Amino acid sequence: MNTAILLISCPDRKGITASVTNFVYDNGGNIEHADQHIDSQTNTFFMRIQWSLEEFRISPSDIKDRFQPLAEKFYMDSNLYFDDHTPRVAIFTSKQDHCLYDLLLRHKEGQFKCSIPLVISNHPNSAKTAASFGIKFAQLEKTPANKSETEKKEVALLKNENIELVILARYMQVLTADFLNHFKNQIINIHHSFLPAFAGNNPYAQAYRRGVKIIGATSHYVTAELDQGPIIEQNTVRISHRDSLADLQRKGKDLEKNVLSEAVRLHLERKILVYDNKTVIFD
Amino acid sequence: MNTAILLISCPDRKGITASVTNFVYDNGGNIEHADQHIDSQTNTFFMRIQWSLEEFRISPSDIKDRFQPLAEKFYMDSNLYFDDHTPRVAIFTSKQDHCLYDLLLRHKEGQFKCSIPLVISNHPNSAKTAASFGIKFAQLEKTPANKSETEKKEVALLKNENIELVILARYMQVLTADFLNHFKNQIINIHHSFLPAFAGNNPYAQAYRRGVKIIGATSHYVTAELDQGPIIEQNTVRISHRDSLADLQRKGKDLEKNVLSEAVRLHLERKILVYDNKTVIFD
Amino acid sequence: MNTAILLISCPDRKGITASVTNFVYDNGGNIEHADQHIDSQTNTFFMRIQWSLEEFRISPSDIKDRFQPLAEKFYMDSNLYFDDHTPRVAIFTSKQDHCLYDLLLRHKEGQFKCSIPLVISNHPNSAKTAASFGIKFAQLEKTPANKSETEKKEVALLKNENIELVILARYMQVLTADFLNHFKNQIINIHHSFLPAFAGNNPYAQAYRRGVKIIGATSHYVTAELDQGPIIEQNTVRISHRDSLADLQRKGKDLEKNVLSEAVRLHLERKILVYDNKTVIFD
Amino acid sequence: MNTAILLISCPDRKGITASVTNFVYDNGGNIEHADQHIDSQTNTFFMRIQWSLEEFRISPSDIKDRFQPLAEKFYMDSNLYFDDHTPRVAIFTSKQDHCLYDLLLRHKEGQFKCSIPLVISNHPNSAKTAASFGIKFAQLEKTPANKSETEKKEVALLKNENIELVILARYMQVLTADFLNHFKNQIINIHHSFLPAFAGNNPYAQAYRRGVKIIGATSHYVTAELDQGPIIEQNTVRISHRDSLADLQRKGKDLEKNVLSEAVRLHLERKILVYDNKTVIFD
Repeated sequence: MNTAILLISCPDRKGITASVTNFVYDNGGNIEHADQHIDSQTNTFFMRIQWSLEEFRISPSDIKDRFQPLAEKFYMDSNLYFDDHTPRVAIFTSKQDHCLYDLLLRHKEGQFKCSIPLVISNHPNSAKTAASFGIKFAQLEKTPANKSETEKKEVALLKNENIELVILARYMQVLTADFLNHFKNQIINIHHSFLPAFAGNNPYAQAYRRGVKIIGATSHYVTAELDQGPIIEQNTVRISHRDSLADLQRKGKDLEKNVLSEAVRLHLERKILVYDNKTVIFD
Repeated sequence: MNTAILLISCPDRKGITASVTNFVYDNGGNIEHADQHIDSQTNTFFMRIQWSLEEFRISPSDIKDRFQPLAEKFYMDSNLYFDDHTPRVAIFTSKQDHCLYDLLLRHKEGQFKCSIPLVISNHPNSAKTAASFGIKFAQLEKTPANKSETEKKEVALLKNENIELVILARYMQVLTADFLNHFKNQIINIHHSFLPAFAGNNPYAQAYRRGVKIIGATSHYVTAELDQGPIIEQNTVRISHRDSLADLQRKGKDLEKNVLSEAVRLHLERKILVYDNKTVIFD
Repeated sequence: MNTAILLISCPDRKGITASVTNFVYDNGGNIEHADQHIDSQTNTFFMRIQWSLEEFRISPSDIKDRFQPLAEKFYMDSNLYFDDHTPRVAIFTSKQDHCLYDLLLRHKEGQFKCSIPLVISNHPNSAKTAASFGIKFAQLEKTPANKSETEKKEVALLKNENIELVILARYMQVLTADFLNHFKNQIINIHHSFLPAFAGNNPYAQAYRRGVKIIGATSHYVTAELDQGPIIEQNTVRISHRDSLADLQRKGKDLEKNVLSEAVRLHLERKILVYDNKTVIFD
Repeated sequence: MNTAILLISCPDRKGITASVTNFVYDNGGNIEHADQHIDSQTNTFFMRIQWSLEEFRISPSDIKDRFQPLAEKFYMDSNLYFDDHTPRVAIFTSKQDHCLYDLLLRHKEGQFKCSIPLVISNHPNSAKTAASFGIKFAQLEKTPANKSETEKKEVALLKNENIELVILARYMQVLTADFLNHFKNQIINIHHSFLPAFAGNNPYAQAYRRGVKIIGATSHYVTAELDQGPIIEQNTVRISHRDSLADLQRKGKDLEKNVLSEAVRLHLERKILVYDNKTVIFD
């Protein structure tokens, strides 16, 4: 059964919820999920509403237009998705392939509503893994000299595959603003620290040096400022003086896998609203 | 600013959300919080909606009647609360007073929207603590012989104080069905284990003997079957072979305090719906 | 550099630590790790000591004999291991292969000091996975009628491969005491609940029905009594009313993988002492 | 029964453990706890050893001298403590008194092996609390102008009371290096963030603005560089977009109390070794 998912943000005022739920109900839709949130600091209203299209009297292609008057009345930022649309996802990876493997296995298990037609890496070592899952693999090495040119190739590959979500699965290269502009709030990165602590390079080594008692991982949308994008999910695990740097890396890998896959799941289920460099998560 | 809070459960069908939000909107209310949940196993709809009464055109005393037709149409179980009503709470305790102290300090800090006029204990040792917070203290010792009679006195005390919530803060006595009938879903207990593990007596000793690596605490509404009521909140903490039984008790106390106070907060903020011996928590 | 690892348990009395550390030092060993624990309830002493054999004047094959007088003097239960010995491990699995995959990937990453020459399953579906990792796969279906005979085949396969550790990676069959006798404290199981809660079948369904707010997973050594063996590791994760049974299963899978692999790592690094149906973990 | 506790750090080499355990054993001591750790990066050896003095043939006052040759041989940094000595502790606090209250209640419950003769605050509001626990209270307001002079008074008060540990229980003033020099590794602070994230002022407001999904608290020894001292304990708790700044503060308070009291307990039980601006915790 197909459903529609509408994500809304707008200035808060009376009547938004009633108007939106009426729009669904008056047209024969059955609400399967509705959640809202009001940020009282900025007086902003957020809503996620999902309804069955089974007896809905507006055809999917017309919903956007028919909703437009309401959207204008309340100055809404809104996004409409359909459950029967399967987004196409690309994974960027590098030498370390634990996150890549984890994503592919979860996908195989049915945890993600998407297809994964493309893996891009600056190293050759994941070619075999991609192949074993029947996924096209592109190796594109990056140097300071060829970065701009290589990114253009990457964007072309992504556009060619109609990619709607890019996952940076321990891809250790910084993307330029040019690249990012093509995929606003469509690139999810995993950073192997509890941001904002230990941004940048070698977060485990930084954590080890500082002597923290807990390490973390953070998944976030990528923005032009390194490691500063809207945080989607974080988790932490205890360590002790007994843990060597290698132990931190081992324990961190489990965090990275879980935190990245949770962000991907939430994104694909259209449960994330980005606002003011933060996320509202309707899970 | 006063607000109304409506908690609803009913068989799921089209139009419930729209009808309820319209009821609020058409009468001039501004929705401050709305959340819903559908239990797909039992096809049950749950909703919590909270709205400002500032410009609401129905007087608080009439809301229930005016909502009645909707409630009947959808076969709703509904409860209406007002933010400006301050519930009166009694705490039952025994020898160990860490939960009592914790609740009183949180109340003093403003974490709970309630008044606490009464503390009942089967031991004398909390009399001074209650007095220092200006709270009436009743010591009622219980023996198998006087249990029924003592409970009658307790109920009389509670009724006399118009108590709407009873907190069992490590009160080590089992209450009879007679007592419980007076306060359905109005008695919250803290059990010092991760239920359903280690129900009954001495859960820490049971946990120590079994050699578990994690201990827990559970807050729940009290029902006639011991430690079987609807669970509100649980939490756990890691232990190791180095932890003696005394260490388990020490670590467990922090869990007990946090898990009990969280349940009390959720109850007082009208965020809990009980259904099918489970809880739906709209937080 | 090869090291020796000695695990000791005995009645506590004066001089054990000094005697053991002297044994190492007087013979030229350099202690790399030493940890001890005294269970004050049973007055039992536990120790793990690991030392470099580089300049140790007793050859590995003689250490046991030369240590014997000390072991007798203190009535020790002791086990001696060598770091340069690579244990051979077999994995039992069934339809669900997430734990199998996780173990194989961690092994490939170098997290486990072992070889994995054999996978046994009662279903055919993991044959390809085993093959892709270059591991021998045996499918042995079990029925009540053929159970005893099949187990004999399994034991023969395990003995033939010199297996020292059997991992039950979501293998859904109960093993008989006959089987277990061959591998005392050498079979690790993952149970998908927070034991002792929800022992037996379908723990996620049991947890869902009870309405708990946290689910867990438990790895333990297998003993004749179902789900009652010494617990090695446990972990938990929060759930809410929004989580369906399928969500519990999805969240639980991550717990299962992490809790099982942690137990396997601890076992292979000789960090577990079993005593009184509990574990002492020197990590 | 009195016990001695010896904390040692020194360059690692052969024979340290054997020499130290022999020292205890040869003089009739019974080792109750011994734990060691080798930092392989810096090749540093750490040890905590605790033994009963019941039949120990060296009198407590002579142990230090008698151990001296060993300490010199291995270039040890060592500290000797006796279980029957009860350290005197002072608590610094400010307007917010939840940590103060928590420490006093835990002390009353017997969780801390110390006496607490003195509370110092720059605000008057904790006077009554201190009095109700029978503790001397000193109010010392600080301004930029009188800081140096006030600190001198504080040091005099602390010295006069023979204070060996200072707890900064949400004391919001920065102490000067002059003050700190009097109490090296004897001042424990609670910072209400997951350090190194959100050092400095208003960490909850910083966390709220950044949109993190987890907040934390950190207890550490105070050094001249603000929020940069050796970390003793940390913990974290999940938050969501629904949590207002006030919710962060409420949830954070529980973290602060637990993380601070754990650090105090570890310090008083002589389980912390400071090295290279980190802590080794033998718990």
